[in-house]
Amino acid sequence: MTMHYTQALHRATQLFPHKAAVKCGDRSFTFREFGDRVARLAGALQAQGLQDGDSVAILSLNSDRFLEYTMAVPWAGGVLNPCNIRWSGPEIVYSLNDAESKFLLVDDTFLPLAQKIRADARTVKTWIYCGDKAAPPDMLDYETLVKQARPVPDAMRQGDDLMGVFYTGGTTGFPKGVMVSHAGVGAGALGLLGERAAAPDGVYLHSAPMFHGADLTVGGAHWLLGNTQAIIPAFNPEAVVDAIERHRVTHGVLVPTMIQMLVDHPVMKQGRDLSSLQMVIYGGSPISEAVLDRAMAALPGVQFLQAYGMTELFPLATCLPPEYHTPEGRKLGKLRSAGRASCITEVRVVDPEGIEVPRGTVGEIIVHGPNVMKGYWRKPEQTAEAVRDGWMHTGDGAYMDEDGFIFVVDRIKDMIVTGGENVYSAEVEQAVAQHPAVAASAVIGIPSEQWGESVHACVVLRPGQAATEEELVAHCKNLIANYKCPRSISFVEALPLSGAGKVLKTKLREPYWQGQSRRVG
Amino acid sequence: MTMHYTQALHRATQLFPHKAAVKCGDRSFTFREFGDRVARLAGALQAQGLQDGDSVAILSLNSDRFLEYTMAVPWAGGVLNPCNIRWSGPEIVYSLNDAESKFLLVDDTFLPLAQKIRADARTVKTWIYCGDKAAPPDMLDYETLVKQARPVPDAMRQGDDLMGVFYTGGTTGFPKGVMVSHAGVGAGALGLLGERAAAPDGVYLHSAPMFHGADLTVGGAHWLLGNTQAIIPAFNPEAVVDAIERHRVTHGVLVPTMIQMLVDHPVMKQGRDLSSLQMVIYGGSPISEAVLDRAMAALPGVQFLQAYGMTELFPLATCLPPEYHTPEGRKLGKLRSAGRASCITEVRVVDPEGIEVPRGTVGEIIVHGPNVMKGYWRKPEQTAEAVRDGWMHTGDGAYMDEDGFIFVVDRIKDMIVTGGENVYSAEVEQAVAQHPAVAASAVIGIPSEQWGESVHACVVLRPGQAATEEELVAHCKNLIANYKCPRSISFVEALPLSGAGKVLKTKLREPYWQGQSRRVG
Repeated sequence: MTMHYTQALHRATQLFPHKAAVKCGDRSFTFREFGDRVARLAGALQAQGLQDGDSVAILSLNSDRFLEYTMAVPWAGGVLNPCNIRWSGPEIVYSLNDAESKFLLVDDTFLPLAQKIRADARTVKTWIYCGDKAAPPDMLDYETLVKQARPVPDAMRQGDDLMGVFYTGGTTGFPKGVMVSHAGVGAGALGLLGERAAAPDGVYLHSAPMFHGADLTVGGAHWLLGNTQAIIPAFNPEAVVDAIERHRVTHGVLVPTMIQMLVDHPVMKQGRDLSSLQMVIYGGSPISEAVLDRAMAALPGVQFLQAYGMTELFPLATCLPPEYHTPEGRKLGKLRSAGRASCITEVRVVDPEGIEVPRGTVGEIIVHGPNVMKGYWRKPEQTAEAVRDGWMHTGDGAYMDEDGFIFVVDRIKDMIVTGGENVYSAEVEQAVAQHPAVAASAVIGIPSEQWGESVHACVVLRPGQAATEEELVAHCKNLIANYKCPRSISFVEALPLSGAGKVLKTKLREPYWQGQSRRVG
Repeated sequence: MTMHYTQALHRATQLFPHKAAVKCGDRSFTFREFGDRVARLAGALQAQGLQDGDSVAILSLNSDRFLEYTMAVPWAGGVLNPCNIRWSGPEIVYSLNDAESKFLLVDDTFLPLAQKIRADARTVKTWIYCGDKAAPPDMLDYETLVKQARPVPDAMRQGDDLMGVFYTGGTTGFPKGVMVSHAGVGAGALGLLGERAAAPDGVYLHSAPMFHGADLTVGGAHWLLGNTQAIIPAFNPEAVVDAIERHRVTHGVLVPTMIQMLVDHPVMKQGRDLSSLQMVIYGGSPISEAVLDRAMAALPGVQFLQAYGMTELFPLATCLPPEYHTPEGRKLGKLRSAGRASCITEVRVVDPEGIEVPRGTVGEIIVHGPNVMKGYWRKPEQTAEAVRDGWMHTGDGAYMDEDGFIFVVDRIKDMIVTGGENVYSAEVEQAVAQHPAVAASAVIGIPSEQWGESVHACVVLRPGQAATEEELVAHCKNLIANYKCPRSISFVEALPLSGAGKVLKTKLREPYWQGQSRRVG
């Protein structure tokens, strides 16, 4: 007797058959139509050979068909495996092969990439084109499948059954497949509902990428209420404004950068009607006071809710509720925090031995709750390391203040211990970045006989600009404590980036640590 | 990785150590104090021999110690078994023996009853007095135990682990123990939170009996938010008003009769400050428009939320949200309904073969969701009959309207099929009750060669009043269709009642059906 992700679709189809389930561009389907399409797509997948537990991948921008995929695959008995659309071909191939995905749905945007990886994606037997043009001859056409298939009954996968494998971790070398269960996703969605990330009669805008757990779970909270879901292919300020106005959107998920791009965009000066918007849920990082000011001025009456988490927590660890974002609430000084344990989670900050550290002391964030992943797909060792006694070890370094608010400072593995002091690379990078000649920087710990580790900065200069090591160190000394300043600097052409655009510090550290092992955490 | 009921206590102790967890009369404990007391009580239970999975009973009015019991028993690794305080001694003995409860906590009110059943409650080895006076010599003293015990770590029972056995079903002969899991209770509490039965910074009043699943689960929703819980020993209008005013109560659970008693009581005319109250959650039956009018006048700005369910659904099936209670919302005509499937449940109305009936047709309500019980304690046959394919068969007869709202008409087994027509005993009883000479009535189906069943009324007349069979039948014909009117009437001194005060129709039917079996459902 546990949650199954399709439950909300059954309920909405029963209670609101004639209400719009989804609106995407000019397409719109009622819950009855949507439910019928889902049962047919599930039928098509089964007719194409899908067996219980088979993995079905999608490589696509956001669309109503992506939403149908999220329901039809469990309905058919399958397992979701949405590709990270920011990854390179080889990374996607790795994730498809690792998950042994038997089906791949591809939209217009990713058709060229799909053709390129076709030979390498060995496990994919059925290629389905879910774009808006004519299907290529070597792929099945999504709409034809839906039209011709017979609807099948819901396979009722539920509870601890695997609902999806979501790949993550491009920064640590090999991507890992995060296994999430139906019960886990259900708990995440209910937790977000408990945190009021959805309201009755709401309209949810899928503006963040749908392959990501954050969107799936906030969307899940709206599913539970039978709300309409509006979809834009990908974030851009004009599309967001158009969708809000056209579909009377009430809730959306954005990261702070998107919020900044939105509120600073000329489209916001056009007197468009955004009065339906009630709440922006953001994550990825805290929001700066300046951006929040502009956002609250541009979107009067809109509430802001921060959620911090990760795919392994699908996705919820802590929440910073709207009342800490108001001018009055900001005086409490929590805006730079990630908030407090959500209604479904427990959160602790611990030392490397797993002992809780005093408030104000930096340690690793660990999280317990019904939304903790089942584990990493076929990686029992990494799973055992990440999830101990039911506690997910996030790898994020943070401190908890007296009121239980979490302030994230760095990835644990990127923290530098020098002469017994902790230095957070993020803080040093912020100081380096303020020098006008610096385009980008990454701060790492390198071996030091005297200090254990010493602070080292890898710096990319702006084109045509110059700065010496001495200049940059002096610049830093004006901003941060002496022991935090780089002891050495190397100037590089570019920083090595993962497919998701994160700096690969492992790669930067490699030449310095050859033959030595670095303590982590 | 699933919910454990104690999770909310861990979180609240961490985040709100100095906030009041509970207020009961003059006693008040912060979350830190409450958490400490729970860990000590758990330690005491273990020191007294509690093993993992042992059942611990309580026979008590509402109190802060009752609340501690609900946390300390799972914390110690035990299973809750709160006695139905409305039951007779033999019924309580039956439930204690059946659950094999090894511990019994007893307050002042139930001390005499406890002494009386002591010899028969064979499995109870440890008797704990949780009243406010001196403990009797043959019982351990609750406060002494808490004071002297060492706090123990949380046993972390969770997920599918048994959290409690709640006895129900006094009207059908033998009481049955409803087994609920930690995951089930967690889902129920999250579902109620999703339906907004709790709000941040709220204060929940335990005014309904705490042995009941409804109170435990609504309280659970407030636990998830770290809200303060105020407690009165039992419902009475003055105590409710005192508690609201003194503790700034925001949410409470009442049944419509209690709401009526409250709003019609002179205490409401005393100009007391009830402005903190935000929501009344009610259940058991719909609320009459007249009582709702008076309640909304007496409690301006308060929202009303109906929840329909049963112990086996711990406790949620459907909800009627506040917007259907306002004068404007009532025009939608749903106030007499039990609302619609909650955010965690699916609801269907089916015929005896389990096939969904058309909207507007009466059938049995069945419910699916993560809150469906694990089953009846040691009653695999009754469990298999009640829960089929994960669907709880409620035994309640109802129809669903075009908008998915459920209108409960009768218990299925009390419905009468006469000449192919369904007659709902409740409707006939309402008609009979309108005759001025009638004190009480119960309508049953009795065998009829011509009609299959015919409608029979058992009537208790008011003292000193008289009415003939012909008069009463004629009275009914003015109110309801001919085929629904009683064909025969027997006048009785009193109706047989269960411990919970429900009419035992089984007993009334018995003499008529000897040697024949009656179709049910």
